[in-house]
Amino acid sequence: MKYGYFDDAQKEYVITKPDTPLPWINYLGTEDFFGIISNTAGGYCFYRDARKLRLTRYRYNNIPMDSNGRYLYIKDGDTIWNPMWKPMRVNLDKYECRHGLTYTKITGEKNGLEVSVLYFIPLGYRNEVWHVTLKNNSNENKKVRMWSFIEWCLWEAYDDMTNFQRNYSTGQVEIEEGTIFHITEYRERRNHYGYFACSEKVSGYDSSRDAFVGVHYGLDAPKAILDGNCKNSTAYGWLPIGVHQIDLELKAGETKFVNFILGYAENPDDKKYLDNGKIRKDEFEKVKSKLLDTSNILAAFDELKNYWSNLLSIYKTETPDTIVNRMVNIWNQYQCMVTFNMSRSASLYESGIGRGMGYRDSNQDILGFVHMIPSRARQRILDLASTQLSDGTCYHQYQPLTKKGNTEIGGGFNDDPLWLILSTSAYIKETGDISILNEKCGYADNPDSDSTLLDHLHLSLNYTLKNRGPHGLPLIGHADWNDCLNLNCFSTTPGESFQTAGHIENDKVAESVMIAGLFCKACEEMAGILKFIGKENESKEYLNHAENMRRTIYEYGWDGEWFLRAYDAFGRKIGSSENEEGKIFIESQGWCVLGKVGLDNGYAVKALDSVKKYLATPNGIILQQPAYSKYYVHLGEISSYPPGYKENAGIFTHNNTWIQIAETIIGRGNQAFEYYKSICPPTKEEQIDIYRSEPYVYSQMTAGRDAPTAGEGKNSWLTGTAAWSFVAISQYILGIRPDFDGLIVDPCIPDNWEKFTVTRKFRNCTYVITIINQEKISKGVKSILLDGKPISGNKIPPLNDGKIHNVEVVMG
Amino acid sequence: MKYGYFDDAQKEYVITKPDTPLPWINYLGTEDFFGIISNTAGGYCFYRDARKLRLTRYRYNNIPMDSNGRYLYIKDGDTIWNPMWKPMRVNLDKYECRHGLTYTKITGEKNGLEVSVLYFIPLGYRNEVWHVTLKNNSNENKKVRMWSFIEWCLWEAYDDMTNFQRNYSTGQVEIEEGTIFHITEYRERRNHYGYFACSEKVSGYDSSRDAFVGVHYGLDAPKAILDGNCKNSTAYGWLPIGVHQIDLELKAGETKFVNFILGYAENPDDKKYLDNGKIRKDEFEKVKSKLLDTSNILAAFDELKNYWSNLLSIYKTETPDTIVNRMVNIWNQYQCMVTFNMSRSASLYESGIGRGMGYRDSNQDILGFVHMIPSRARQRILDLASTQLSDGTCYHQYQPLTKKGNTEIGGGFNDDPLWLILSTSAYIKETGDISILNEKCGYADNPDSDSTLLDHLHLSLNYTLKNRGPHGLPLIGHADWNDCLNLNCFSTTPGESFQTAGHIENDKVAESVMIAGLFCKACEEMAGILKFIGKENESKEYLNHAENMRRTIYEYGWDGEWFLRAYDAFGRKIGSSENEEGKIFIESQGWCVLGKVGLDNGYAVKALDSVKKYLATPNGIILQQPAYSKYYVHLGEISSYPPGYKENAGIFTHNNTWIQIAETIIGRGNQAFEYYKSICPPTKEEQIDIYRSEPYVYSQMTAGRDAPTAGEGKNSWLTGTAAWSFVAISQYILGIRPDFDGLIVDPCIPDNWEKFTVTRKFRNCTYVITIINQEKISKGVKSILLDGKPISGNKIPPLNDGKIHNVEVVMG
Repeated sequence: MKYGYFDDAQKEYVITKPDTPLPWINYLGTEDFFGIISNTAGGYCFYRDARKLRLTRYRYNNIPMDSNGRYLYIKDGDTIWNPMWKPMRVNLDKYECRHGLTYTKITGEKNGLEVSVLYFIPLGYRNEVWHVTLKNNSNENKKVRMWSFIEWCLWEAYDDMTNFQRNYSTGQVEIEEGTIFHITEYRERRNHYGYFACSEKVSGYDSSRDAFVGVHYGLDAPKAILDGNCKNSTAYGWLPIGVHQIDLELKAGETKFVNFILGYAENPDDKKYLDNGKIRKDEFEKVKSKLLDTSNILAAFDELKNYWSNLLSIYKTETPDTIVNRMVNIWNQYQCMVTFNMSRSASLYESGIGRGMGYRDSNQDILGFVHMIPSRARQRILDLASTQLSDGTCYHQYQPLTKKGNTEIGGGFNDDPLWLILSTSAYIKETGDISILNEKCGYADNPDSDSTLLDHLHLSLNYTLKNRGPHGLPLIGHADWNDCLNLNCFSTTPGESFQTAGHIENDKVAESVMIAGLFCKACEEMAGILKFIGKENESKEYLNHAENMRRTIYEYGWDGEWFLRAYDAFGRKIGSSENEEGKIFIESQGWCVLGKVGLDNGYAVKALDSVKKYLATPNGIILQQPAYSKYYVHLGEISSYPPGYKENAGIFTHNNTWIQIAETIIGRGNQAFEYYKSICPPTKEEQIDIYRSEPYVYSQMTAGRDAPTAGEGKNSWLTGTAAWSFVAISQYILGIRPDFDGLIVDPCIPDNWEKFTVTRKFRNCTYVITIINQEKISKGVKSILLDGKPISGNKIPPLNDGKIHNVEVVMG
Repeated sequence: MKYGYFDDAQKEYVITKPDTPLPWINYLGTEDFFGIISNTAGGYCFYRDARKLRLTRYRYNNIPMDSNGRYLYIKDGDTIWNPMWKPMRVNLDKYECRHGLTYTKITGEKNGLEVSVLYFIPLGYRNEVWHVTLKNNSNENKKVRMWSFIEWCLWEAYDDMTNFQRNYSTGQVEIEEGTIFHITEYRERRNHYGYFACSEKVSGYDSSRDAFVGVHYGLDAPKAILDGNCKNSTAYGWLPIGVHQIDLELKAGETKFVNFILGYAENPDDKKYLDNGKIRKDEFEKVKSKLLDTSNILAAFDELKNYWSNLLSIYKTETPDTIVNRMVNIWNQYQCMVTFNMSRSASLYESGIGRGMGYRDSNQDILGFVHMIPSRARQRILDLASTQLSDGTCYHQYQPLTKKGNTEIGGGFNDDPLWLILSTSAYIKETGDISILNEKCGYADNPDSDSTLLDHLHLSLNYTLKNRGPHGLPLIGHADWNDCLNLNCFSTTPGESFQTAGHIENDKVAESVMIAGLFCKACEEMAGILKFIGKENESKEYLNHAENMRRTIYEYGWDGEWFLRAYDAFGRKIGSSENEEGKIFIESQGWCVLGKVGLDNGYAVKALDSVKKYLATPNGIILQQPAYSKYYVHLGEISSYPPGYKENAGIFTHNNTWIQIAETIIGRGNQAFEYYKSICPPTKEEQIDIYRSEPYVYSQMTAGRDAPTAGEGKNSWLTGTAAWSFVAISQYILGIRPDFDGLIVDPCIPDNWEKFTVTRKFRNCTYVITIINQEKISKGVKSILLDGKPISGNKIPPLNDGKIHNVEVVMG
């Protein structure tokens, strides 16, 4: 069964049945005010931090799964229904949800009344706008009563869901001309309030959940709506909500608009109240005067659409493959923006409570985002660097609001420091801006240090050099990229963190071959940076370090047919044919090839052939095989999952992209592309009742063949897969890759592609690149004409003249 | 409107309408396996720790409010309904919920089919039993399909509600002959499993929530039930549930029984699996062989009823007041058991996530529980003492499972140490067992110390002596009993703890008059203990300390008409006529009188008169007046609540009991009793639509007159009010009060009571005490006949002969 289709012209995914296999989510917001929204309008919004400043309540893992959201109830005659189907689930005559780029439009029709809601967050505002269009498609005049509904979260989401002995006594609102102001805790330490306002005169309102819904009733049957009337309640303690009641008359064929704004506003600490004891509402008044007006709203919506058109014009492609075009030009870049904004904070799977920004995650997210808004990437890199400690380790997570490292988890994830080099390198390659290297950024334990970002990069590589084990390979610490491979933790207590159990500071044995490969890559990038700023000697040193590490890998990191994964705390091999389970892992195969390990001696090809032989499936490449059938205390969380799930032999899509890139490095375009397509979301539409997750964005994981649910997608949206997939397809398969001193053209494509184009804005130019592949090969550039003139090599120089340049590339 | 009635003969509260103003809760379990259960069967169960070992999911603050529980669905013809009304809320022909002592029986009838479920946890088991009786009251034979439903919590309740990117991949079950075994994480670090079994052969089952309920549907409309058939699903990852499908035929007039058991079981770490890879089920098999059988179940239920009869036979009264009899003989003692078991862990308001056992709370809870099972009180006292630090401060909370102090909150609540003296004294008075004083219990920071409990008591009093402020009054630290009066914290950051903000170690100014009064009382108790063990000199020293403190209070703690509450961090008065708001507080009035402050100089009477004048209302005594209309950073959380709620001028029932006792100390029985009745839950039945909370147990708070919701009860069940109310009514109003060397008879009653009796088991005797009040006075004992012989004074000696003794008391 299909639940929708791609409307590529509108850059939308259109859902045509409300009862999708799982709630299918979209995001609202671009910079600091965000929301998640499902195809039935479920979800919530927050300002900057999904835990600390959450505006509305959402109930994760509820029954039904997607509970609470931005609802409208319609009473038309005796029929009460929701245009978004939920919460009442009354059958609709027509339903359509259009998930666009940071907006969602849901339309429901019943008995000739069509109600459509466009949800978006205008640029520069901290508001959700709900633009409602009511259209009387019938031949009769209609009197319609409509109710809006949101439920306020008491700001701190964790406290909101646990501390009821306090919370049930704190909820407060003010109500003024039908606008509901949420002012819980405003009287004490908060200087911010929420508001929910409507463009129409209301015939009633409610702000007490008990009054409106009733204690025993669900949102499928709110008491007030069944009664037909709001209670005009004022919440005091207990449970504040926001409900407007609006009465409308629609002549046959008539269309009317009603607008709602839901927002966050602040006051200066010393100007919180008016003389009459009411809260100051200056910010609200300002927003209201603009955003309750339909023409202003439509203008703001156009602005948002233009914002995205501009962002997506930086990298555009036209290839023979519709799915590639769709992903590269729309959805993959869109997801990259979302992962950059959210890290792993708020999705259907990330509750916005537990984790801050991940150090490793955010550095990687930059790789797929940096071309869109380099200035934001620049700031993020500096923020991340500031959570590094002066010994080189990094806080594994940090809070976006305070930018402080999360001490509960701490550092000691030994791959973390190296990712900073990759993100910095990507930023400089994109922009040429080397000033970032001289930016002062202190250490988490010495914030006033005079150290520069460049110092941080040196420190990061030295951290690996200094923390090596018996074989000279990097020590793994709590874990490397695979957070679930915990070789030093030996956790036996239920509920404790697998990562922070144990005393890794005393454990100097367990080593990671994956970090070794990553280190080689990071050295190459660092060498490139140093060369670019004229430090040739230092540059060469890092190339030597990389080469030494490669030799170490050849000696101790090779298992005969593939790269080992690690050595455990007893010095025993992990990911070796010697093991009974977990004989071969994907990560070290990917990173060794990315780090140019085994390119000369055949190991790279052998390793990738082994990946194909032992790990590849039609749904993607499995993380390791055979799955762990029991818990191994010396391996940790990886062996805690049921076989086929997550790190225990699931298809962890993130690492699939490294293999795609690796295949392009050794020139196998068909194989790279087959892998690319195997995890590409739109390809899942054909098996959507198995896959279940959104077919427009990547999921972190697809259940592997060892699971009875094989093929099921899980943990959609917030995954490093987004950034790395964009790197893989745009830079390595399509092959348009920024370098320090120009734009490399180095495609590695399916050999049946005869032609494709890429339009790339790069350093104040637009390059319209046409690649011709008449010889039907996968890799190799024979000639390049830049504005009709041949250039030598395959790197387009940065012309920086603000103009459009034509580039004709012939493969051969 | 009334929603039920007391059935005192059955010791039950009978709810006759399912849509109570709030979910009305009861508890299951007596020792280590517990559940909370609402009048519509909502709730959950856990083994020992509501956070770490939670068996079933409950959704706090859901819509509807009380979501998820122990449900049965009945399909009789085309009608599908729940005997407990929820989740489907189909109108019932008859509904009744009987909340008894650690059991609940819910009966629903529809179309001539009566289905009744008795829920209880048999003594000595870690199981819930659901004993279902189906009765065909119609004249026709019926074919009935019945489904059970529970949803498994993935053990760690906090993780369960936040960490979905992991949890959605870990859920696992085994299914064997219709029994659903919940084995999530069993393969790794857990050695325990849950199970849900049925006495009947099932015609189907489900263990996957998605399969049974569907993603978009609620428990009001589970997909499988609407379809008519279970899917026989096996959860793998995602969301495990337990559902049995049972087909029954009932002839006209026929009754059948079906039994379910829901349980927790453990295996030895080295014997987790059978050879066939299935988990070992020895414990389940054992339980199953007993508890699926109706006659065994009924026997176990009788045993539970006897258990309670025995416990409640220790203190029984017959007075002219039905409500007193009901509370003293049944509900108040029952609530004392629950607060002893739960501390502030699991209720409709306490989510079982955030807090461990409170040090102060648990010491007080013992006061109302110690007479029932002194051995458990003894252990608790020693556990509590072990969380004291060697400098005298105490961890404010500790985890019941590990018995370790909660370092996040730490110590520095300066009243904490003193409560240990009160609980220890109560224990010795009850039992005469002085051996507890010599029990070794170390300190949290020196667990191997040779210190004894007696050392802890000395240390506790010395802590107060050593930590006094400029006026010689005790320093308050983070807070005293009023956790929300935070004089040293100056919190301005939203979301941070009001208690632990600030740096109290540097603040040696803010003082508490309440602690001063409590110190006097604790000195008296300590002196009593020391005297009882023959240490007369040490005893006198503490009496001197108390007397000195009283003089300090006279000098610096008296405001003219009442006792001050405190001095703030700048040395300014709190709770003084000098203040604009918060002029008078309740706590210091109560504790000064309890500490014998002002008994000689008229201050006590004046203070209590001021309480009457400024704080007393028909619904109880308000905590302070006037309410704080804004946030005062130097006062903290107290001023954060909306006026009339919680500590900000709510009726905090806990401290009302101290005033009741104080009134008996000055001999005003009518006033004491009026206060007692003003907060007594059954009196709220007449205003239940305002009060809303359970009329059979105390709530922590009733909204004060400053709130628009004045009279609304909140935070029911887990409150120190339970223990202190029992102390007030049983020991001070009825006046039967254990002392070190006997049983004091010292009633202070309404002067219109002519007679009442108390039966008191005390130190291996039963005293049947009849009190005659022909002179219609409130206080004063003229004569006592013990087994017909006069004794001097008003203290019955402990006869310790295992016999029943008649005591005739004449007031005068």
